[in-house]
Amino acid sequence: MQPKSPADSLITMTELVLPNDTNLFGNLMGGRLMYWMDIAAALSAQKHCSVLGVTASVDNISFENPIKLGDAVHIEAKVTRAFNTSMEVHLRVWGEDLSQQFRYKSNEAYYTFVALDANRKPKAVPSLEPTTEDEKRLFDGALRRRQLRLILGGKMKPGEAAELKALFADTKAID
Amino acid sequence: MQPKSPADSLITMTELVLPNDTNLFGNLMGGRLMYWMDIAAALSAQKHCSVLGVTASVDNISFENPIKLGDAVHIEAKVTRAFNTSMEVHLRVWGEDLSQQFRYKSNEAYYTFVALDANRKPKAVPSLEPTTEDEKRLFDGALRRRQLRLILGGKMKPGEAAELKALFADTKAID
Amino acid sequence: MQPKSPADSLITMTELVLPNDTNLFGNLMGGRLMYWMDIAAALSAQKHCSVLGVTASVDNISFENPIKLGDAVHIEAKVTRAFNTSMEVHLRVWGEDLSQQFRYKSNEAYYTFVALDANRKPKAVPSLEPTTEDEKRLFDGALRRRQLRLILGGKMKPGEAAELKALFADTKAID
Amino acid sequence: MQPKSPADSLITMTELVLPNDTNLFGNLMGGRLMYWMDIAAALSAQKHCSVLGVTASVDNISFENPIKLGDAVHIEAKVTRAFNTSMEVHLRVWGEDLSQQFRYKSNEAYYTFVALDANRKPKAVPSLEPTTEDEKRLFDGALRRRQLRLILGGKMKPGEAAELKALFADTKAID
Amino acid sequence: MQPKSPADSLITMTELVLPNDTNLFGNLMGGRLMYWMDIAAALSAQKHCSVLGVTASVDNISFENPIKLGDAVHIEAKVTRAFNTSMEVHLRVWGEDLSQQFRYKSNEAYYTFVALDANRKPKAVPSLEPTTEDEKRLFDGALRRRQLRLILGGKMKPGEAAELKALFADTKAID
Amino acid sequence: MQPKSPADSLITMTELVLPNDTNLFGNLMGGRLMYWMDIAAALSAQKHCSVLGVTASVDNISFENPIKLGDAVHIEAKVTRAFNTSMEVHLRVWGEDLSQQFRYKSNEAYYTFVALDANRKPKAVPSLEPTTEDEKRLFDGALRRRQLRLILGGKMKPGEAAELKALFADTKAID
Repeated sequence: MQPKSPADSLITMTELVLPNDTNLFGNLMGGRLMYWMDIAAALSAQKHCSVLGVTASVDNISFENPIKLGDAVHIEAKVTRAFNTSMEVHLRVWGEDLSQQFRYKSNEAYYTFVALDANRKPKAVPSLEPTTEDEKRLFDGALRRRQLRLILGGKMKPGEAAELKALFADTKAID
Repeated sequence: MQPKSPADSLITMTELVLPNDTNLFGNLMGGRLMYWMDIAAALSAQKHCSVLGVTASVDNISFENPIKLGDAVHIEAKVTRAFNTSMEVHLRVWGEDLSQQFRYKSNEAYYTFVALDANRKPKAVPSLEPTTEDEKRLFDGALRRRQLRLILGGKMKPGEAAELKALFADTKAID
Repeated sequence: MQPKSPADSLITMTELVLPNDTNLFGNLMGGRLMYWMDIAAALSAQKHCSVLGVTASVDNISFENPIKLGDAVHIEAKVTRAFNTSMEVHLRVWGEDLSQQFRYKSNEAYYTFVALDANRKPKAVPSLEPTTEDEKRLFDGALRRRQLRLILGGKMKPGEAAELKALFADTKAID
Repeated sequence: MQPKSPADSLITMTELVLPNDTNLFGNLMGGRLMYWMDIAAALSAQKHCSVLGVTASVDNISFENPIKLGDAVHIEAKVTRAFNTSMEVHLRVWGEDLSQQFRYKSNEAYYTFVALDANRKPKAVPSLEPTTEDEKRLFDGALRRRQLRLILGGKMKPGEAAELKALFADTKAID
Repeated sequence: MQPKSPADSLITMTELVLPNDTNLFGNLMGGRLMYWMDIAAALSAQKHCSVLGVTASVDNISFENPIKLGDAVHIEAKVTRAFNTSMEVHLRVWGEDLSQQFRYKSNEAYYTFVALDANRKPKAVPSLEPTTEDEKRLFDGALRRRQLRLILGGKMKPGEAAELKALFADTKAID
Repeated sequence: MQPKSPADSLITMTELVLPNDTNLFGNLMGGRLMYWMDIAAALSAQKHCSVLGVTASVDNISFENPIKLGDAVHIEAKVTRAFNTSMEVHLRVWGEDLSQQFRYKSNEAYYTFVALDANRKPKAVPSLEPTTEDEKRLFDGALRRRQLRLILGGKMKPGEAAELKALFADTKAID
């Protein structure tokens, strides 16, 4: 299998916030947004591995600005790193006020997908080779985020997470 | 404001997996499940604080077993701890195969909501007093999960997270 | 086949009233509620008989209080009695105003389901043994409601409905 | 207010059965059909009274033939009788197999609507004058069905339902 | 195959404009209407040819009057002419204000469908024999519209479209 | 008002074909696609004019290749020319088979939007200045397409459409 670049898996999605997507304040509900993000991330993972992928996990998501009824939602998804049979997908989400003509950040997130063959067994995926500085930073951080996922999923003990441990001795923000 | 118990905010939701909720394998898509979980969690938070709440963040979710087309989805949501103007809601999700008559675990998750008044400003919420052993464990863990949220959201430096730091010196699983 | 208790088939469903569920007054449309009730009842029937059930009939439903946009809808479904290949499911529906923190009754209803095997032929279902006083009352009333269904469906002549006939000589309310 | 004829309130609705409308047998779920019927009936009631109507009750519905995925659903709704502030709407529902070119009956039903003014108070509606034999038969039966509704809703005692009582001494089918 | 009349393929559809169907002005979005029209037209084409049809093309649609939230939408679809394996369907769309009791025109359109057999290959369809004056006018115009479709689809050169060419020398409106 | 470039109004939308979007062949229904295209086009028009736009008309659409269940749909929308209060939006649509990793063309279309102010009156929009060769070609063709729209909408006589008339003397394809 030939390695792929993050650009190969870029998905750009735009949605319009309709009444049924909103809470009583007229703002997009977090759950609807996570639904759209899941589809964007799944498409991105499938572009990388050419088979169906299923959502294995979703990392912490923090919603920064509410997105209003009638605003546009822009989602960009790109694979950051491929492991054996899984892929981490990075998502960036913005709202856009079309009358005032400005974009505002909503959130950033990481979804992990497992590639499955026709018998629903995990299947090896091509490796990913980052190109830009931003892609390399995301590629490097993927290991650390993976340790955190394993710890939070109860599959690794905190004391064994070498990379994360170093970090907690440190004063920089995790990303 | 009178303190409330976790039982006051219990929400039990049941959904049926319909064709449009599934991927090509005929299994529930993660995004649709997160949408339902968001509604269950929002209702639970509103039962606690009596005003509208908006999703502030969602912690790591790891999907364990796929839920099949035609199966039932059971979601239980309950507030674990109230902070100043925010509440952490714990969700447990099961699938149920109605022909074979068994339930299987899908995932567990924590959603955080901020209470808003009519002017969309954060509003103080009643405190929560846990009763059962399970509720006390969740109440205690809420502080640690909050630190992790702040770190992952870039609002706290890992070196300052006293509780988490201790944990990384340790060998127990986080939950 | 082992008899089952009503508790075995209990389904608790919670829904949030979204804009598309409402009429121009901002109240839940009856049809949307009957759709949710049908799913709750179908899941309850399937829990009882372990095979797929299809809606055979729905008894009179009378809507008492409108449920508002943004309110929660609570549906409880439980099998009341099993006949040869069919089951009667009792539903109780409440709205809940989450700001004012009170529940109000919306309606009560009976849905009847027929169990089907893989060839879509009616299939025998386990019998039901009521436990509580409330369950026994519902179990007894099921015969009378069944006669009424048969009469209304043109499959029984009113003069032959012994139980109902007695009732019309009487002054008590049917339930 | 001028009296109206049933023809003034005729609504003809056609829907296509899509995957999300079906159970695991690929047949239309009863709940989806009741949702469509509610909309057809509401439109019919509004054509009669020129104000918004809300569903007050639904009479017994018995589903005769399953409607398949990909088939058309035809619904005809017409007001049968107007009471003070309420209207009874009669619905006839057919499925249509478009490949084999035949229509088959699904069910017949009666929905009752209450007309509301802008303050959500019941509002008087025009009377209805039936024209055809079929319309007159439905008009006459409306009184009897109304007594049954009142009894089943616990608002009338069976012993007081003169029309129905006579019927139970009789051997004809109710319709 | 026996010829059919336009009346054989008449489809009458009624929809209610719900919140999610509207833009921020509270008017029906064009795209939702085209979705409903596509279903009405597909059902009409299938009534004509007894096999599945797929949308091949849609002619110019011009939206005349906005349809408001809560109004009814009436769609009438009828086959105007059958070609070898395709059918042209004519649609007339009205909105209806139920409070003020008037209908207003929304648009008229032509959708073209191709009949497919079980192997998804184009399949010959019965011919159509128009009866009324209106049907004959639509039947005749179908040839001209077909030329325009072929030109706009890049499959015919304008100079070869004899019928259309004559028209452009003329001063009558095309319909 | 400052002129804008087509790039200012570029919208890129990606959707996943779910079961409810498909016909019995498992292919995307034309009507669903036109719905998505309408939203993409509306967002593009709003990016150009900074106010709400409503769909005024849709030009001929010809569907070339069916898009399968589970495939991705890519829609690109861009304003081609601004008239006084209206804008023509050009859309290009592709399907993408994610397993075989290829894109295939579905269709191209032109939607026209009218900008409305807060009182729902048509509002002047900025002019558009095309930059690339492709944009200039689309800009020039917009006049011709507009004449055709006016003729088809019965608002211009064919004999008066100077540009189109010349074309019909010619042998080139219209686009």
